[in-house]
Amino acid sequence: MPVHLSAPNPSDLHPVAGLRIGVAEAGVRKANRKDLTVFLLDEGSAVAGVFTQNRFCAAPVQVCREHLAGGQAVRALVVNTGNANAGTGADGLARARATCAALARHLQVDAAQVLPFSTGVIMEQLPVDRIEAGLPAAIADAQPAHWARAAEGIMTTDTVAKAFSRQVQIGGATVTVTGIAKGAGMIRPNMATMLGFVATDARIAPALLQGLVRDLADQSFNRITIDGDTSTNDCFMLIATQKAAHAPIESLSGAEGQALKAALLEVAQKLAQAIVRDGEGATKFITVRVEGGKTGEECRKVAYAIAHSPLVKTAFFASDPNLGRILAAVGYAGIEDLDQTGIDLYLDDVHVAVQGGRNPQYREEDGQRVMKQSEITVRVLLGRGTAQDTVWTCDLSHDYVTINADYRS
Amino acid sequence: MPVHLSAPNPSDLHPVAGLRIGVAEAGVRKANRKDLTVFLLDEGSAVAGVFTQNRFCAAPVQVCREHLAGGQAVRALVVNTGNANAGTGADGLARARATCAALARHLQVDAAQVLPFSTGVIMEQLPVDRIEAGLPAAIADAQPAHWARAAEGIMTTDTVAKAFSRQVQIGGATVTVTGIAKGAGMIRPNMATMLGFVATDARIAPALLQGLVRDLADQSFNRITIDGDTSTNDCFMLIATQKAAHAPIESLSGAEGQALKAALLEVAQKLAQAIVRDGEGATKFITVRVEGGKTGEECRKVAYAIAHSPLVKTAFFASDPNLGRILAAVGYAGIEDLDQTGIDLYLDDVHVAVQGGRNPQYREEDGQRVMKQSEITVRVLLGRGTAQDTVWTCDLSHDYVTINADYRS
Repeated sequence: MPVHLSAPNPSDLHPVAGLRIGVAEAGVRKANRKDLTVFLLDEGSAVAGVFTQNRFCAAPVQVCREHLAGGQAVRALVVNTGNANAGTGADGLARARATCAALARHLQVDAAQVLPFSTGVIMEQLPVDRIEAGLPAAIADAQPAHWARAAEGIMTTDTVAKAFSRQVQIGGATVTVTGIAKGAGMIRPNMATMLGFVATDARIAPALLQGLVRDLADQSFNRITIDGDTSTNDCFMLIATQKAAHAPIESLSGAEGQALKAALLEVAQKLAQAIVRDGEGATKFITVRVEGGKTGEECRKVAYAIAHSPLVKTAFFASDPNLGRILAAVGYAGIEDLDQTGIDLYLDDVHVAVQGGRNPQYREEDGQRVMKQSEITVRVLLGRGTAQDTVWTCDLSHDYVTINADYRS
Repeated sequence: MPVHLSAPNPSDLHPVAGLRIGVAEAGVRKANRKDLTVFLLDEGSAVAGVFTQNRFCAAPVQVCREHLAGGQAVRALVVNTGNANAGTGADGLARARATCAALARHLQVDAAQVLPFSTGVIMEQLPVDRIEAGLPAAIADAQPAHWARAAEGIMTTDTVAKAFSRQVQIGGATVTVTGIAKGAGMIRPNMATMLGFVATDARIAPALLQGLVRDLADQSFNRITIDGDTSTNDCFMLIATQKAAHAPIESLSGAEGQALKAALLEVAQKLAQAIVRDGEGATKFITVRVEGGKTGEECRKVAYAIAHSPLVKTAFFASDPNLGRILAAVGYAGIEDLDQTGIDLYLDDVHVAVQGGRNPQYREEDGQRVMKQSEITVRVLLGRGTAQDTVWTCDLSHDYVTINADYRS
């Protein structure tokens, strides 16, 4: 059961002017399932993205990178579920390109103006014929209001569709930010992949977009972890249709740029957190906040050591206020000159460890009270500086093992 | 149930001349339990060790380092279970020192000639009074033949005592190597700690010992992983009593040095592997061998990425020949310039992936056959160089979650 997460109400998802979304049942892997989604962008839209750092990246990721690097204006995105087109070699690349070419023919654009995305089983060839056959229905379905359909259309083994929307006033105009996401890193690995798509009608200089999407990812999708596995297919795309009525944003440091970035970040973080809330077997949503580091990098190291520790994660599952496991993870996070006597630990408001040892005022029942909650903040003070960072994760439950041990059966 | 591991037969464990071992029930945490072990070393023995890299290292680890750095000849080791004396601050350090002082008084040596080791619950103060009260019984129990008793005496939640022994001819003399170990990294974290003690009667220049113990650890205890958690208390100690009748070994590169090192490594590797075989919830013993890297370091990165991946580990538990999970782990191991098209993957003798893609000759039933075994070798060929390395691990089962979620109840 996801932790405090419910399916979006379609009427809460504001359309983004200049962008239409169509969904179809192409039978990629199973019949009677929405498995093909197209995003159709008006002329003048700008697109940027960040992709998995996995060296075993999937064919569509390689094609996305090529097409974005080519510099032609992106006019469409095509997403299939059921097959990840990963570990498929040269043939997989050809099939990803064929998918783009097929959609491009319908839209009368160049194949390089289409970005492909795939999620599903690994190491099986993409049934590009079925995708091609499904494209007319997806195109015919395209509407600005179809965000909720798209959130369902990109689901694989997600238990809840994930979509958020926000509007903000910029330069006297209402600007919309709407996004969807699926999966959780390698959350269901042969049905793999985190995909995130966020669109805005804001007018923003296209040159700003790549830096912006990277910043957004670094504060959202790159700050979540279910099990530490990194998918071959992860993508986070930012689309700016440039349709809003405000003056163009030429810098992110001005008031308008900051307002837009804040709205985008809120949607990206909610989507990223939704992925954790729907993490495999998750029963708790954990915020790991590390403060007082010399650098953000070392704060992240510590936060990820805690968030990845199977022992810490099982302790959360058991509601066991097991201080030793968290402190041990801090200790092996890789900060060479870490002084354990400078470290304090809090579970929510409960001060459990002081200067590297158990807080004399700490009572087990206070830790127990926090650990029983379904949302918990672990706060580590390193006492070395002023940097900080935050990572979101979930617990490790029996269901995680069941899901991952049984999913192919 | 441990994987192909049974308790040692005491008569298979050769005594090491110059070393006596005594075990007692001190009631550190529970009554009627062997929880206090002393190793008493004749004059002339040399001792070296390697310790946890966790910055949250326990008080006894800090005291061991101090005493070894002080340069006085070590005359005794004292090991308690039931309490790890970790996360205990200055008071914990004082209690570790008091334990050494108490044993030193009995032996009429200096406190700095005693090394302390603790394993058990974290963040509780060591009941040093009970340990002191138990020392006379442990000393009175001391016999060269008590290795099997010691293997039991240092167990916490291990299900099987771990001890191996080997004899080798060096310079016309029979040289004995005998060792014991317990735990598995953070295998049962509030009952934490990997401890390994290997002794030999070989005559070896004390100056060689520190480099030797580090080499041995790097090829044994530092090549195993259960869950990636590093304990606050891990120690591996090498004792050379210098009693054998051969000429002193002044170099490890000669035939005698090589013979001794091989015997020591065999015992250290068997002990390390025994820890994995008795890993929490382990149902399979997995050898991850990575070949064809540019450096040993990058081979280790890949091997650990595979060995730590919860998805790979649950696939082993499920006997699911899930190629994508292993290849994905290779991809995110952190080799920046890795070319996926150079990678081959074998499960035992079955060639499952070739040049980064599924081997056309691979049949699922062949992978399935290997995955059903209780011992499996994963072999990854990186195709970049001639370096190689090996890591041993186990699968991730429901019992792992059960054990770690329930152990304090």
